[in-house]
This record gives sequence, structure tokens and C-alpha cells, in this order.
Amino acid sequence: MNEAVRRQRSGRGARLEQRGHGPQGIGRPYIVRNIPTYDILSEENLVRIEAAADRILAEVGIEFRDDPVTLEHWRRAGARVDGRLVRFEPGLLRDILKTAPATFTQHARNPARSVEIGGNSVVFSPAYGSPFVMDLDNGRRYGTIEDFRNFVKLAQASPWLHHSGGTICEPVDLPVNKRHLDMVYAHIRFSDRGFMGSVTAESRAEDSIDMARIVFGPDFVDRHCVILGNVNVNSPLVWDGTMTRAMRAYARANQAAVVVPFILGGAMGPVTNAGAIAQSLAETMAGCALTQLERPGAPVIFGNFLSSTSLRSGSPTFGTPEPAIGSMVVGQLARRLRLPLRCSGNFTTSKLPDAQAMTEGSMSMLAAVHCGANFILHSAGFLDGLLSMSYEKFVLDLDLCAALHTYLDGVRVDDNQLALDAFSEVGPGSHFFGCAHTIANYETAYWDSALADNEPFEKWEAAGSADAAGRANRRWKQMLADYEPPPLDEGIDEALRDFMARRKASMDDAWY
Amino acid sequence: MNEAVRRQRSGRGARLEQRGHGPQGIGRPYIVRNIPTYDILSEENLVRIEAAADRILAEVGIEFRDDPVTLEHWRRAGARVDGRLVRFEPGLLRDILKTAPATFTQHARNPARSVEIGGNSVVFSPAYGSPFVMDLDNGRRYGTIEDFRNFVKLAQASPWLHHSGGTICEPVDLPVNKRHLDMVYAHIRFSDRGFMGSVTAESRAEDSIDMARIVFGPDFVDRHCVILGNVNVNSPLVWDGTMTRAMRAYARANQAAVVVPFILGGAMGPVTNAGAIAQSLAETMAGCALTQLERPGAPVIFGNFLSSTSLRSGSPTFGTPEPAIGSMVVGQLARRLRLPLRCSGNFTTSKLPDAQAMTEGSMSMLAAVHCGANFILHSAGFLDGLLSMSYEKFVLDLDLCAALHTYLDGVRVDDNQLALDAFSEVGPGSHFFGCAHTIANYETAYWDSALADNEPFEKWEAAGSADAAGRANRRWKQMLADYEPPPLDEGIDEALRDFMARRKASMDDAWY
Repeated sequence: MNEAVRRQRSGRGARLEQRGHGPQGIGRPYIVRNIPTYDILSEENLVRIEAAADRILAEVGIEFRDDPVTLEHWRRAGARVDGRLVRFEPGLLRDILKTAPATFTQHARNPARSVEIGGNSVVFSPAYGSPFVMDLDNGRRYGTIEDFRNFVKLAQASPWLHHSGGTICEPVDLPVNKRHLDMVYAHIRFSDRGFMGSVTAESRAEDSIDMARIVFGPDFVDRHCVILGNVNVNSPLVWDGTMTRAMRAYARANQAAVVVPFILGGAMGPVTNAGAIAQSLAETMAGCALTQLERPGAPVIFGNFLSSTSLRSGSPTFGTPEPAIGSMVVGQLARRLRLPLRCSGNFTTSKLPDAQAMTEGSMSMLAAVHCGANFILHSAGFLDGLLSMSYEKFVLDLDLCAALHTYLDGVRVDDNQLALDAFSEVGPGSHFFGCAHTIANYETAYWDSALADNEPFEKWEAAGSADAAGRANRRWKQMLADYEPPPLDEGIDEALRDFMARRKASMDDAWY
Repeated sequence: MNEAVRRQRSGRGARLEQRGHGPQGIGRPYIVRNIPTYDILSEENLVRIEAAADRILAEVGIEFRDDPVTLEHWRRAGARVDGRLVRFEPGLLRDILKTAPATFTQHARNPARSVEIGGNSVVFSPAYGSPFVMDLDNGRRYGTIEDFRNFVKLAQASPWLHHSGGTICEPVDLPVNKRHLDMVYAHIRFSDRGFMGSVTAESRAEDSIDMARIVFGPDFVDRHCVILGNVNVNSPLVWDGTMTRAMRAYARANQAAVVVPFILGGAMGPVTNAGAIAQSLAETMAGCALTQLERPGAPVIFGNFLSSTSLRSGSPTFGTPEPAIGSMVVGQLARRLRLPLRCSGNFTTSKLPDAQAMTEGSMSMLAAVHCGANFILHSAGFLDGLLSMSYEKFVLDLDLCAALHTYLDGVRVDDNQLALDAFSEVGPGSHFFGCAHTIANYETAYWDSALADNEPFEKWEAAGSADAAGRANRRWKQMLADYEPPPLDEGIDEALRDFMARRKASMDDAWY
């Protein structure tokens, strides 16, 4: 066992967390799924959706704004470039995508925390991008770098996430043009897992990668993925220059872009699911292919972010059935392209960590798990339609992530699991509490929630009748109090601080 | 459209409910699934589980207590009967089960509400069997016949359930030996959907069926299923006489028993999932086969109720990953037997309609939907490990049931759904709000929750910052206030009342 994992297991945090164990125990760097993907659409209908995406690409096209290099890439690759509008003959993008790896490793600074992305692997990563944070004590307010660090620490303290994430919340107390440095530093300093860098400007993407180079060494970074960048399509059918330049910066450095359309059906896409899926496929294929033109063989993740809108109010909706079921189709399409997949997460529009939050979140998260997603951003903390990062929801979601470790193990079938000896021993009408098979298996038999209350009503009432949100409130505070930072080489730490100081000194603060 | 359905749709309740519409609109008597079942286990492993069940049946056997007729049935069928212990050669039960129908209709007194049970149909039915009821105003207390009637009315008022259920809660204010009459009457009087009768004594099962005969006519009842009886195995491996006599009463009358082991792993079954599933298969096959010995061709439902226990406290746990994933395997096994399937439901151990309740409930309910269950008992109201029927949880679960109507529709792929014209019309960088395709489709485009709050934070806050449970509290009260009873023929009503009066007069009250 790796030293850092051992340390984590032996701390107070580990004792707290060990209540929530699964059959394979805690400490897995990522999940290897042992259940099949849930393939809901026939080959015939998948082909129809692919053909629709091909027609969108060939007949409507995609605009690439403010990035002449990207247009030049497309010209050389044989696409039809007309001003900033680019059209693609059917098959062109699929050909380009053949150089993208089906699976790759994102290396963590603690090698025991490195994750496989692709194939049967599943990686849970925190929610990303909220301007606000929320907790039950103080309600909603703008996020700060302290909140950001808190969430990095909470993620690090949990064995049920596998990744430190990216912009967990916006630290709005820091200048817009410098906060990426503090965010990347927080991921490196307070976590030893993989993380994501900035995409809000090409220079910030490059700063993020440079900081990774300080940690891993420039040669290692050129040959291995150590940082991800999550880039969004400006749906419908627009890639803006900020995103393509950032995406190319990651690809150029052999780092993985996560290519994600942002389609709220009825707004940035059609109100019908099949059309939104076809659009998503078209937009994602174009983005993923661009990374291969920048650097053939660079790792890239096929992403999607389907959601719907309330057609009464125009508000976005999350955790609804259409995107959940649509994710299953997107999963099938990604596998046909042999690309690693990012899907959904624990989505909700609820403003509180309540029944709505977890109904919507569970539907969305289970869809991500069923569809075969390899990298599940927004696995924990998402509230308020992505506007708020919630401390309590984070902890509630961790418990669902824990349960999904066991869920994804599926049903094992062997002599011990079939327990025929136990039936012979116990016989009809008795109970299994003390039988040999139970004694031999009980320690690892069932997933044991760290948060759910399974006590009898009277005992629960006597203990104060807390609801799940109230228990989550106590729990995140305890986790922060128990948090222990992973060791970081002092030379690296100093070099990182030095790099940040120089970069910060090189420009004035910008606040928008 | 049927008259009763039209009336329901035009009432105030319908207007409230119509916020929650799906693509196919409201008013479907049951769901026809348009997505495949989720088959997680290989043929090889299914065969191993079947072989384990066969060995349990052949080597350990099942006890049938206090029912000589059942033992005589088994003797004649060729089982090895040794006192009350019965052992079965591999293949015997499968042969007997060949006469059981793969699908059947349960007729409702309103023919528009009749449901198919089997094949691709999915029927949602309320929770069953709690001694307590709960609401946010009054907390937990014993259920009464008034509560019982309230839940029948709430179920009837919702288009998202398809069945009136059975013992929705125990009306403990009525004598144990007479309350079945009032429960069956409430289902008939306040609902026009299918329902379940008593199983707590053979005579009560017969009373329930006799009341159905008054409604449907004895000849019709002899030829069609109009009532279900939910019978439990006394797991492990015991069928007691109360259950087998009640089960035989239903089968004799050509009515469907729902045959359900009750396995809390670690207590009534082994702590390992594969073993619990094998046990469940053995127990259910024996029960279902018995119905065929009583009356070959009688409808019967293959049921299961897997759950786990907290091995720290011994308390039952619900909505955990092991039973969820186990349900998927049970679904595969039931389909191999070509029997209609009942699975899981919206399970939880939470004592409140909170985040825990809906995390556990969603995992459990989605498993039921994915595993191919045709009849999902406990679809709404289940709280506190089956001990409490919750008014708020009932309404929260209705909203999930509504979402699942859309979920089970899957992704349709046709020219309108692919929306290619919309992409041509809108083009890159614009929005789809006002385009022709959106206008043509928006009324039925998305499922629209009747309970979720999708409003912007500020609007939600200004409206009082209610959580989902608070909204559910207001909603069930409004639904009860708006409830309108379905019409019932006065002659039938009088005959039912007369039957009940005679039966009640024929015996003293019994309170245990």
C-alpha cells in the first residue's frame, strides 16, 4: 500500500470514513466497473442520430470565432472553411479522431492516486464552476478562496472521490486574471489527487500547465497526462476563441481537454432529445478532432452536458428524465467513437440539500454511472442549477458516491457468495445472524452509509430527530477539523509559490 | 376517452396535476416501457444462481406449516414430503410453472383503468403495510381508517399511479378481524382502479374476493383477474399456513397472488447477494408453483423483497446498493421463467421526507424500473423502513413516478425528434426559444415536475424559501381538498355495505 494511502487510512478522518466501507474496502484510486453499460438504443437508431450529426456538420456547420490557427487547422485537414463557418464532409472528423487514445492515465502527484480514464474505469470528481457557495448556517454567498480550499480539503478527505476537480467554486475575492494560480496551487497543496486547470484564457491554461510542470517535471508532462482542462462549446454550434485556444494549449502540451457542449434544450438546442443528442455529438466531435489536429495522439475526453428548460418559465432544469435517458445514448455514441466519456453528475435545481436535490441528483448521477461515463464531473456539491456549491450537498453526494462503489461492483457469483453451506447450516425457519457464513463475511458484507440514519424511530427521536441535511452539516465541519494535508516536497512548494508570485507581479489585477 | 377519465381530467385536481405532464400526456392506465431491461448478469452466472436455488430446494427444502392441503398438493405433484418439510427435484417446480400466464389483465371497475401485468407493462402501486402514518404537522402516529381513505383518495387523484394498492396503512382503530372489509370497501368506493385484498386469514381473502364478485359479478371474476393478494414467505424457507391458505384462496378464485419472500440479508437470508437471490428464487418458485397446483392457469406474480441489515446495529436497511443491483438479477431470473415480476419500490429507512429518503428511494425505485418489474408495490409513501406511511413522501414519490413515465418512454428517433429543420432555421450562435420546431413541440417537450422548484434563487427566496417537504405538505392537503370520488353504482354500493354489515355481525371484534 502506498504511504500516503496508509497515512490517510490511519488518521481520524479514515476512522470516520470507514463506517462507509464497501465490499472492496476503501482506498481505491478509481472504480473499475463490474456491471455492463446500459445500452438503451438500437444500432439502427444510433446510426440515424450519427447521420443527423453528420448532416448538421456538413450542411449547417460550426462557427470557430477569434482563432485563426484553428481555421487554418481545419483548412489543412480538408474542411470547408467559409469565413469563420466550417463545414465537414461526413467521415472527416471520425478519421481525424482515430489518433485519439481510447483510454489514458491521468497521473497524480501521489502515484497511488493516478486514475485511468476510459474503458471500464469510473472517476468521480467534484462539481465545477459555481459563483456561489452555500451552507445551512450562512445561506448563500459568493465563493472565496477559503471556500475553494475547504472543498479541496473535503474532497481529499473522502475516499469516495477520485479527483480533486477544477474550479470547484469561483473565488470571487481574487482578481479574475490571477485566481487560476491560487486555484491550481490549492489543488496541488491540499490534495494529492489529479486536478483540472484554467481554461478562461490561453495564458491561464499555460500557467496551469506550467505549474504542473513544476510538480511533475517538464519531460514527464510532455509524455504523460497530469492535468485536465474542461472546455465548453458555445452551443449551438459555436466554438469561441477563448475555448479553442485553451483547448489547443492543453493538447499541445499532451494534456487532456474535456470537450463539453452546454445544451439546455429549448435554448441552446432543440426541445427534442434526439436532436439535442445529435447536436451534442456534432459539437463534441469537432472539438475533440481539433485537439488531434493540434497534436495527434493527445488525450481528449468526449463530454456532454444535456439539460432541459422549464418551458413555463424559461429556467434551466436539472436532474430531469430526458437528459438522464439521453446520457445513455451519448454513452453508446462515445463508445462507437472509442473515446473516454464524461457525462452528467449529481445535478439539481433545488436551492436546498433536500428531497428535491437528491431525487434529481440520484436520477442524474445514476444515469452517468449507467451510461458508462469514465469521468463524472459534478459528482458532489452541485446545487441551485450549478449556481451554488453546497457544503451539505457535497457530503450527501459523497454518501451516494460511496454507495455507487458497491453498486458498480455488481453481483459476484462464486461459492462463498452463493452461501449454500449457510442454508444447510441454518435450515428453514431459523436466522442467519450467528451462522458461520455470516461471521466469515459480515465485515465486508454490506455497504454501510456514513450518513444515513438506519436506527429505530425511537432511537433516532431520542438523538434529536436530525434530518439528513442537519447530519451533513455536522459532518463537513468534522471532516474539515480532522483534515490533514498530504505531504508536499518543500522545494516544489517553494517553486510553485515563486512562480505564482512572478506571474502575479507581471500584471495588474483585473476584476472582470 | 372513457367518461371517468374525462371527468378526472376536467376537475380541479386535473388542472393541478397537468403541470406534471409527460410527452405522452397524462391518463395512461399503465406504462408500456420503451427502454430495454438492464440485464447485468451473464447467462453463465444466471445458470449458477438457478443451480444454487435448485440445490436449496432439493437438499434443504422448504417447510409448509399448518396446511395439510398444500402438503397433499406437493405429494401428488411428486415432491418429497417429509412431515412439513418438502424437497423438490430440480426441474419439478419449473414444470409446474409452465401453466402460469406470462401476462394477464387486472380488470378495474372502470375499464379505462384496467392494467396489463407482465411483458413490457409497468404498474405503480402505493406502499403497503405500515402500522404508522406520518405527516409534518402531527408527526408519527398509528394509522386509522381515515388515513387509509385519505391515501386511497390521494392515489386516485394522481395520474402517476396505476393501482389503488392494498393495506396502504393498517387502520388500527378497527378490529383486526374486520378491518379488511373497510379497507377493500375504501378501495372500491374511493378509487376506480385495481386493488389488493386481504391475506391475513383465508376467510378474509375470501371476503375480499366476495366483495370483488359483488362489483364485477361472480362469472366475470371466475374468468378474469380483478383483485390481487400479496403473500409473504416466512423467510428463510418457510411458508406458513396463513399465507398458503390465503394464496390458494386467490388462486382457486382465478385471482393473482403476488408471491414475495421477505429477505433482510444477514437475518432471513445470507449476507451475500448471490445467495440471497438464489434463496429468493427458490422460495418464490415454490409459492408460485403452489398456485398452479391449486388452479392451473391462475395468474400469479413472481415477487421479491431483498434488503440488507446494518451489521453494526442489526437494523434493516433500505434503498442500499446491494438490493438495487440484486433486483436487476431477479428481473433476469423472472424473465427466464416467463412470469410477471414485482420488485422493490421506493424504499428508505429515513424517518423524514428528506435527502436520505429520496436518495435511498430513487436508487431503489430506479432499480425496480430498470430490472423490468411489471408491478411495483411501494411506489409511493414508504418511510421509516416500512413502519410509516408518509403523506409528504407519498407526494414526493408521485413526482418521481411522474418523471419515470417520461424516463420509460426512452429516446424516440424520428424526423421531428431529430429536428434537422430547426438547426437550419436557427444556425450557429442563436437560440431555439422562438423557432418553429420549438413552437410546434414545446407543449409536450419536457416532463414538467409539479413539485420541484426550478425558479431562480431570488424568486424562490421571495416566495418563502420552502423546501421540497414543505411544498409536499401543502400539496397533499390541496389534493385531498380537490378530491372528487369516482361514480359508483348505487346498487353495488348498497350490496357491498350489506355484505360488510352481515360479515361484521357474524363475529365478535378481535383486537389481535
